[in-house]
Amino acid sequence: MRRIWFATSNPGKLAEAKAFLAGWEVLEAPGEVEEDQPDLAGNAIKKARAAAAGGKVFAEDSGLEVDALGGAPGVHSRRYAASDGARVARLLSELAGVPGREARFRAVVALKVGEDLHLFAGSVEGTIATEPRGEGGFGYDPIFIPGEGDGRTFAEMSREEKSALSHRGRALAALAAYLNETAEP
Amino acid sequence: MRRIWFATSNPGKLAEAKAFLAGWEVLEAPGEVEEDQPDLAGNAIKKARAAAAGGKVFAEDSGLEVDALGGAPGVHSRRYAASDGARVARLLSELAGVPGREARFRAVVALKVGEDLHLFAGSVEGTIATEPRGEGGFGYDPIFIPGEGDGRTFAEMSREEKSALSHRGRALAALAAYLNETAEP
Repeated sequence: MRRIWFATSNPGKLAEAKAFLAGWEVLEAPGEVEEDQPDLAGNAIKKARAAAAGGKVFAEDSGLEVDALGGAPGVHSRRYAASDGARVARLLSELAGVPGREARFRAVVALKVGEDLHLFAGSVEGTIATEPRGEGGFGYDPIFIPGEGDGRTFAEMSREEKSALSHRGRALAALAAYLNETAEP
Repeated sequence: MRRIWFATSNPGKLAEAKAFLAGWEVLEAPGEVEEDQPDLAGNAIKKARAAAAGGKVFAEDSGLEVDALGGAPGVHSRRYAASDGARVARLLSELAGVPGREARFRAVVALKVGEDLHLFAGSVEGTIATEPRGEGGFGYDPIFIPGEGDGRTFAEMSREEKSALSHRGRALAALAAYLNETAEP
């Protein structure tokens, strides 16, 4: 359902807005501000702006860098082929007969809070397996063996095991630490 | 609970982020963008910005204008006294012995979509009752008799009856029409 936020702490106004906005999920936006503007429009704008500035959004991008391929597929990891299976097959094919299989996963998380942007990076070193192993994860997980692991691919690990080692887990841990330090309860 | 939005359509990534962000409500932010930037950070920033720009927030301010009081309490309607009861009592006291009791409620809704602001106004003409009547609504509702009604105060009406006549109902109806015309499904 389409979502919209209403900067109010008045349950009556929230219920009224929900009745008008059928087909929308109307959520209460936190953040009270002083209504000190000279007119109604000024106060309404001030409240809407404050609520929007309090909204936190993050996004993530990640890629696999294979040293023997000059860092490919890298930022093009998703566009490398049309499906996870085809991506894995293409990478294994390009590495056939190549001696070194060193690689790393990198992730960057971008957090937007109002006008501010914060970046959190994470990476994990490893090697590319000679054939896919495991059913977990997604993407290149069946052929990535993290160097700090026990020889299993990411796809052979539970979500918790992978998260503890992975590029994205590290970037998300940095995001969580930042959020928990800076956000009001 | 504190909320944060994750611009992803990957259920595995969403579950992973939830595990890291204990104590936060992690919501999926809609809006896919092309990941065409030269590096991971560029793609992550692009996705976070697009998701933030798609976030819709609105706020409302309303006030009661009494003609015989030069438009007071107006934008100061909430600050007129410390509680709903005290506000009503003060207004009735100021109008004691004054001949005209014409008044209007005004509401302004401010909608923020990314950097854009849109305003929607609504008003309703009426008169101030000589004593409070009814238990519904809030604020000055027990002493406001809308001119288009049947003599009952807003506080004597059901929420649906009041919404059909009220300043805020009219502003919300304009907001709803705009949203339903402009938003993608």
